[in-house]
Amino acid sequence: MTRRLTLVGLGPGDPELVTAQAVRALNEADYFLVADKTGQHPGTADLIAMREAICARHVTGPWRLVPVPDPERDRAGRAEYTSAVRDWHEARVRAFEQVLLDNPGDAAVLVWGDPSLYDSAIRVADRIVERARVDVVVDVVPGLSSVQLLAARHRLVLNAIGGPITITTGRRLLDDAAAHDNLVVVLDGTLTCRRLPDPSAWRIWWGANLGSPDEHLMAGNLDEIADQIWSRRTAARQSRGWVMDTYLLRRGQQPHR
Amino acid sequence: MTRRLTLVGLGPGDPELVTAQAVRALNEADYFLVADKTGQHPGTADLIAMREAICARHVTGPWRLVPVPDPERDRAGRAEYTSAVRDWHEARVRAFEQVLLDNPGDAAVLVWGDPSLYDSAIRVADRIVERARVDVVVDVVPGLSSVQLLAARHRLVLNAIGGPITITTGRRLLDDAAAHDNLVVVLDGTLTCRRLPDPSAWRIWWGANLGSPDEHLMAGNLDEIADQIWSRRTAARQSRGWVMDTYLLRRGQQPHR
Ligand SMILES: C[S@@+](CC[C@H](N)C(=O)[O-])C[C@H]1O[C@@H](n2cnc3c(N)ncnc32)[C@H](O)[C@@H]1O
Ligand SMILES: C[S@@+](CC[C@H](N)C(=O)[O-])C[C@H]1O[C@@H](n2cnc3c(N)ncnc32)[C@H](O)[C@@H]1O
Repeated sequence: MTRRLTLVGLGPGDPELVTAQAVRALNEADYFLVADKTGQHPGTADLIAMREAICARHVTGPWRLVPVPDPERDRAGRAEYTSAVRDWHEARVRAFEQVLLDNPGDAAVLVWGDPSLYDSAIRVADRIVERARVDVVVDVVPGLSSVQLLAARHRLVLNAIGGPITITTGRRLLDDAAAHDNLVVVLDGTLTCRRLPDPSAWRIWWGANLGSPDEHLMAGNLDEIADQIWSRRTAARQSRGWVMDTYLLRRGQQPHR
Repeated sequence: MTRRLTLVGLGPGDPELVTAQAVRALNEADYFLVADKTGQHPGTADLIAMREAICARHVTGPWRLVPVPDPERDRAGRAEYTSAVRDWHEARVRAFEQVLLDNPGDAAVLVWGDPSLYDSAIRVADRIVERARVDVVVDVVPGLSSVQLLAARHRLVLNAIGGPITITTGRRLLDDAAAHDNLVVVLDGTLTCRRLPDPSAWRIWWGANLGSPDEHLMAGNLDEIADQIWSRRTAARQSRGWVMDTYLLRRGQQPHR
């Protein structure tokens, strides 16, 4: 019998930011899968606990969470980045597949934020279907992304009127900033914007741990506040063992709203 | 006494895609404001009805919807686009402000999708605060955007692994496509991608009226399906008087997941 594998976007942390559709999907699943990075990053136990809090708030009746230990990722140099990520994906695919083989019933993968943004769950599920060792039909339930919560908290419209928005990663920022006036940055462990050649040209709207009780927000001219942001980020990280942050960068001559 | 003005993202149409926080914000408001474009586009009465359906699903007790007639917009040529939009914003500001002056209590603006993407509610609210004729404190409740629903329906990750995503408008597409491999297009009334110089280089994932009972999805090589998409779009538009669509374009040599 074909089983259901639903990739459920839970939003960026706050249980109130879950949609009615996600609540329904959680309640219809027999068990939940969650990628477990505590082997590599013990601090991230918190991130699993936050997902449990979301389930506790919205799931009626008992539920079962199956952590899927994340394989080691080979953090090689830049040139090998894509292939290292691919190998790691394949290992993850096998880990998720094994859990599905071991646990009958309909499963829901608890995805942080929105599955369509810098998340591997869709690619993992596609590969599981392709490998055909488990008979599942895959559905995606969208979720609010951290980027949208950043915008809401700062009361930002991400685009200038009629203008484009580029979402990129810390790794690519220095290249992408050369060609764009309006960028959102995710996956940036070192606040790469501090290394932009023209810091006085930019404004920044930054947010960390958005949707959690330990949320941080700062906004201003990049050259004036970058160091303060870095201090806040470092302190937040030290106190919890992890920090997640994202920011909008806009060139100063652009209208800010 | 300071009143609350909450800009509530309702998601792209489906009442199930509303968050718990949005439900709460609706239930806490004394009345709802909604931009009413039926003067210019009679077909858009539907769009107001869809918002009413969302309220009917989630608001306990009676509620009151105050339509704010949208001012005429001067649809001039490209060069004047930004200033025409600005004048129109100012007229809209006065219209919303007047409704707030005429109606005491806490108001919620019903925003389609997410307020942070190509929506004027935040800019309108900021101007109302700036003008200081009404004493309001503004909050934004994020909502799912149509772009995320497009991705969920096609089971797409919007970014290639580690790669950027650019969101742009039909008006800018021909320029922006020259410099990008991966674009989401909104606000495109003429399916501008049909005029790209290299249609065989692109794949497209298209969706119209996402989240409504009359949803349309198509995906494939741009050169092969652009005309079929245009026919579907035209038919959808004729049957309801309006259509809203968005799409992802990705250069063919990029990995598709
Ligand atoms: C692997 S990506 C996943 C993004 C996620 N799918 C989403 O929609 O938000 C992780 C990155 O998202 C951003 N992020 C996720 N959750 C966040 C939060 N609660 N506050 C700030 N940034 C967050 C950070 O940039 C982090 O490095
Ligand atoms: C003024 S913008 C508002 C976008 C909205 N704030 C959001 O987050 O989706 C309107 C454009 O969004 C896209 N759009 C909005 N709702 C849609 C839907 N239900 N299906 C497809 N596209 C939609 C279309 O490109 C439309 O031209």
